[in-house]
Amino acid sequence: MDAQHRLWVRFRAPDGSVGFGTLHDGQIAEHRGDMFAAPQPTGRFVALDGAKLLRPMQPGKVVALWNNFKALGDKLGLSAPPEPLYFLKAPNSFADPGDAILQPRDKGKVIYEGELAIVIGERASGVAEHDALAHVFGYTCVNDVTAAEVLNRDATFAQWTRAKGHDGFCPLGPAIATGLDAARLVVRTTLNGELRQDFPISDMRFTVAQLVSLISQDMTLEPGDAILCGTSIGVGSMKPGSDVAIEIEGIGALRNRYVARD
Amino acid sequence: MDAQHRLWVRFRAPDGSVGFGTLHDGQIAEHRGDMFAAPQPTGRFVALDGAKLLRPMQPGKVVALWNNFKALGDKLGLSAPPEPLYFLKAPNSFADPGDAILQPRDKGKVIYEGELAIVIGERASGVAEHDALAHVFGYTCVNDVTAAEVLNRDATFAQWTRAKGHDGFCPLGPAIATGLDAARLVVRTTLNGELRQDFPISDMRFTVAQLVSLISQDMTLEPGDAILCGTSIGVGSMKPGSDVAIEIEGIGALRNRYVARD
Repeated sequence: MDAQHRLWVRFRAPDGSVGFGTLHDGQIAEHRGDMFAAPQPTGRFVALDGAKLLRPMQPGKVVALWNNFKALGDKLGLSAPPEPLYFLKAPNSFADPGDAILQPRDKGKVIYEGELAIVIGERASGVAEHDALAHVFGYTCVNDVTAAEVLNRDATFAQWTRAKGHDGFCPLGPAIATGLDAARLVVRTTLNGELRQDFPISDMRFTVAQLVSLISQDMTLEPGDAILCGTSIGVGSMKPGSDVAIEIEGIGALRNRYVARD
Repeated sequence: MDAQHRLWVRFRAPDGSVGFGTLHDGQIAEHRGDMFAAPQPTGRFVALDGAKLLRPMQPGKVVALWNNFKALGDKLGLSAPPEPLYFLKAPNSFADPGDAILQPRDKGKVIYEGELAIVIGERASGVAEHDALAHVFGYTCVNDVTAAEVLNRDATFAQWTRAKGHDGFCPLGPAIATGLDAARLVVRTTLNGELRQDFPISDMRFTVAQLVSLISQDMTLEPGDAILCGTSIGVGSMKPGSDVAIEIEGIGALRNRYVARD
């Protein structure tokens, strides 16, 4: 991981071109090459004001944790699991900062879940815990949107994939921050400007290094893949028209609006 | 869907180039363009004998059904679910015909599950059942490999993603067949040459058209995505050195060997 604090973004410029680069004082310093493998500045600067920010990476997979915060586990009467428990967010759910989160066709209750996302920078397979952070590129914000009523409506099979996998249910961004100590981060979620979640990453049951190491024992993690660290207390439902922001100091604020289908 | 019966393959030629095309009498007629959008023959033919077959598509996502066959449901005492129940196979699990299926690091019991895979040819979002087959490109074989002991070892959370998502746990191929009526197909699985599964697709709880339509209500399906139709009776465990073949007449046989890690 880059020890220096930088903010990496992907963007669509006013001329329609898509690029990526680092953010400084309202300007994006465009880079070329692979964000995860020594990209080089192009020398072009794009004003953030005129650019549309895109999700900062295009993950091959997004692994998402369940029951990874002590405070939420205590509230729900869940003890610490012996190993990380996780599901996958479907690729059709990946979305950009500012994208509308479209109401599902079945129109049941939909909730926000503010989370920290770990972004992998270097392939990880069977990585030891003490080496794991070398495979992390940085961190971004995510809203792990969930169709709450779908999840447990079949008594024989918990529908994690479906409840979490609707189109647009995984906005990511606005930037990937490098050079941060995850254990010092705090996730804050606001709904229509009102603070609803405010929880420290230090409350995680499994640290970032443990998550990367343990998941990499079974599943090879590739550059651009993400691990969503799970949410804590304060999740709640969105109504059509709700504005949700997931904010982590040092990364930025991921803002999306939940909108009615009709 | 192409009404004509064709077998589409992807391959690596002896010169190292990767291509795709249709299979005829031991020769691959190479094509260019997009397999799912009017590809054109290049005029080059590659002998199947010298080529390495690759998985016939590179899916963005693979959705996999649970409890979709009446015979297996009856055996397990499971009634018909009111809607399809599904999980996702992780991208790191996607593998080619002939690839070794590597034993997981934890070395628990690993089982084969022979299945039919539906391959999407045209984007499907909120598609009606009567239009669904127009979004299907064809069908291939899949082994939905599963670390059986991982699945239910946590009482609070069924680990579908992890048990089904190890590296190499989703071999696909050898070809995508077009022009088939799925309801007439039969899946046969052999373990070390011995027949272990022999079940008709007509026993599915949800037809191909119903699966595509219902899943597309929540998740947009893209060209190359696959829906694994679920397995039926006869699943069993593999030992290191086991040869497994999933064979569907009209498609071909998908062969892989399960190998020890050490």
